[in-house]
Amino acid sequence: MNNFEFYNPTRIVFGEGKIVELNRLIPKEAKVLILFGGESARKTGTLDEVEKALGHRQIGLFGGIEANPRYETLIKAVEQIKQEGYDYLLAVGGGSVIDGTKFVAAAVNFEGDSWDILTSGGAKVTSALPFGTVLTLPATGSEMNKGSVITREATQSKRAFMHDSVYPQFSILDPVKTFTLPPRQISNGVVDAFVHVMEQYLTYPANAPVQDVFAEGLLKTLIDIGPKALATPHDYDIRASLMWTATLALNGLIGVGVPQDWSTHMLGHELTALYGLDHAQTLAIVLPSMLIEKLPQKQAKLAQYAEQVWGVHDGSDKQKALQAIELTREFFERMQVKTRLSDYNLGQDVIEPLIESLTKNGMTALGEHHDITPEISRRVYVASL
Amino acid sequence: MNNFEFYNPTRIVFGEGKIVELNRLIPKEAKVLILFGGESARKTGTLDEVEKALGHRQIGLFGGIEANPRYETLIKAVEQIKQEGYDYLLAVGGGSVIDGTKFVAAAVNFEGDSWDILTSGGAKVTSALPFGTVLTLPATGSEMNKGSVITREATQSKRAFMHDSVYPQFSILDPVKTFTLPPRQISNGVVDAFVHVMEQYLTYPANAPVQDVFAEGLLKTLIDIGPKALATPHDYDIRASLMWTATLALNGLIGVGVPQDWSTHMLGHELTALYGLDHAQTLAIVLPSMLIEKLPQKQAKLAQYAEQVWGVHDGSDKQKALQAIELTREFFERMQVKTRLSDYNLGQDVIEPLIESLTKNGMTALGEHHDITPEISRRVYVASL
Repeated sequence: MNNFEFYNPTRIVFGEGKIVELNRLIPKEAKVLILFGGESARKTGTLDEVEKALGHRQIGLFGGIEANPRYETLIKAVEQIKQEGYDYLLAVGGGSVIDGTKFVAAAVNFEGDSWDILTSGGAKVTSALPFGTVLTLPATGSEMNKGSVITREATQSKRAFMHDSVYPQFSILDPVKTFTLPPRQISNGVVDAFVHVMEQYLTYPANAPVQDVFAEGLLKTLIDIGPKALATPHDYDIRASLMWTATLALNGLIGVGVPQDWSTHMLGHELTALYGLDHAQTLAIVLPSMLIEKLPQKQAKLAQYAEQVWGVHDGSDKQKALQAIELTREFFERMQVKTRLSDYNLGQDVIEPLIESLTKNGMTALGEHHDITPEISRRVYVASL
Repeated sequence: MNNFEFYNPTRIVFGEGKIVELNRLIPKEAKVLILFGGESARKTGTLDEVEKALGHRQIGLFGGIEANPRYETLIKAVEQIKQEGYDYLLAVGGGSVIDGTKFVAAAVNFEGDSWDILTSGGAKVTSALPFGTVLTLPATGSEMNKGSVITREATQSKRAFMHDSVYPQFSILDPVKTFTLPPRQISNGVVDAFVHVMEQYLTYPANAPVQDVFAEGLLKTLIDIGPKALATPHDYDIRASLMWTATLALNGLIGVGVPQDWSTHMLGHELTALYGLDHAQTLAIVLPSMLIEKLPQKQAKLAQYAEQVWGVHDGSDKQKALQAIELTREFFERMQVKTRLSDYNLGQDVIEPLIESLTKNGMTALGEHHDITPEISRRVYVASL
């Protein structure tokens, strides 16, 4: 096991009807800016519920944070906060709204050009406004971590930052809030959580049996409950397990003390930035090809994955590994997420722009061995056609 | 899944040589009281390492915190703090030293009789001195939770309290510090961690698949590494996994949203208070008898435990359950912890004093169904002879 540091102070408040707890969780004297995405937060009644729970506090609203939240949008929220004097933020939505709120919270206190928050990966952040979240979409884990991914529209750059000061103070997870989600968002959420686990698990054996069994447990749970979450949207227990699994998939716990990969995410980010695919779609496309490309280095862990997650015990390590990759692809397809570039009408002509952008963004030594060069990334994209 | 709240702000700093991080983790201007147990902290050099890492800070020492830490001892530390003006505590040791430090931290700020902290279960606590820990013994999980168990010698009472203010600010886990532990402490630590998991897992199915796979993963890991930790004390990776497993066994994570039992602990506490057995010995004695006594209510989960943890797939649920209980007893014995009262020279004559004490301490409705009366506890003790 590698040395590590683990710290995660976010308070999770989990269960049906828990939005009323906002009154306990946010200081009485706070002036609160509520950040949200599209009109669904209003239409489903969640926003009304939130406003009611906040009682007599002064509140403001900032809507319109889009999927793959944009720098250009978020700096408007920063301006509104400075002008109207909010001292507490509340994100109501999924990972995009929460990621956006993290950036806003850090940018309000930031001296200089706030894009530097992202170019420095968070290193230049010193503090952030306190904030909490009401999660409506299980997927990204942003509700219990310190990471945020923001897109700059002007340059088509998708950049991440991390900082201890942007852990949410609390996150309210009410599984009932997921009942009305479109199936596509559930499909995407399951695939996103699944690949989050894979990026922290599927590298090489590192004498970390607890991290392995936890990761395998999350994967097996997603394989079991993912299709059920699509088939029976109002099954509380299924949605509750999905919500908690997605949170645990990226709250830092399973990634401590082990090598991590994240190359699939980096190649995927380019697909979103350049061609607008959903984040989960890009992961479903890239992961199987990446695993095949890196088979020599990943074979031992892939064989373990085949045995422990998929119950594949026959054949050589290589055969087990290949079968597990195929089962992974089939799982994504079963979750209604297509796994080929051609399924999204993208062909050979997208490859060079993707590689150019990847290179421009400095993504030239990816993976747990830092050996995935643009040349190898090109092979992965080509294999994903 | 039941509703829950999860909050755990303790920072874990894990790995060989991490004691030097104390200089970063404790405020420069702090006046630090170091609390420890017996002379081993001095003999092994750990105390010197700690003092060196603290550099020029003002420090004081409070040694002599015993296993099953005593109220009578700890109030002396409270007096020393008040007289000498420490504003930061550092526990160096295992669960007893950490539990004791939690009580001291809360008692320093407490108005009135500090025993009320324990009779109120922590409800009367309002704040505590900040503190960190250097863990030397993997077992109790106290390094990453808000619980503490204290014994009052005068009345032979063993009482617990919990409060958010006594989460350690940080805990340093250096697996190398466990290399010199006596085998008995490793044996006890593995059994203690194992039963911590069982108390949160072995109740009835509650539609919480993630909590189940995590608990099963911790149990399987302990079954695998426990005997190896005894056989090869200097195997860093084994000790590292043991240390992290024991922490995760009782940091609140696997117990969220599920029913919990804890009756084995309550019956065990009486055995320690009255007859001085090691905490883990009492758990190894009580658990198998308790599981047999509660077989009707626990059968479904015991069968799941048999399948998922022990790989027992043949027979009826009852047969699987009974086989799993027997395998559990064998595991404790393999870990060199005896599982019968008679192994500790205790006979029929201890039963009534135990029941009297249990009743006096209000432990009259134990278990996940609150249906373990003194009469049932008597049957469990008798079955443990």
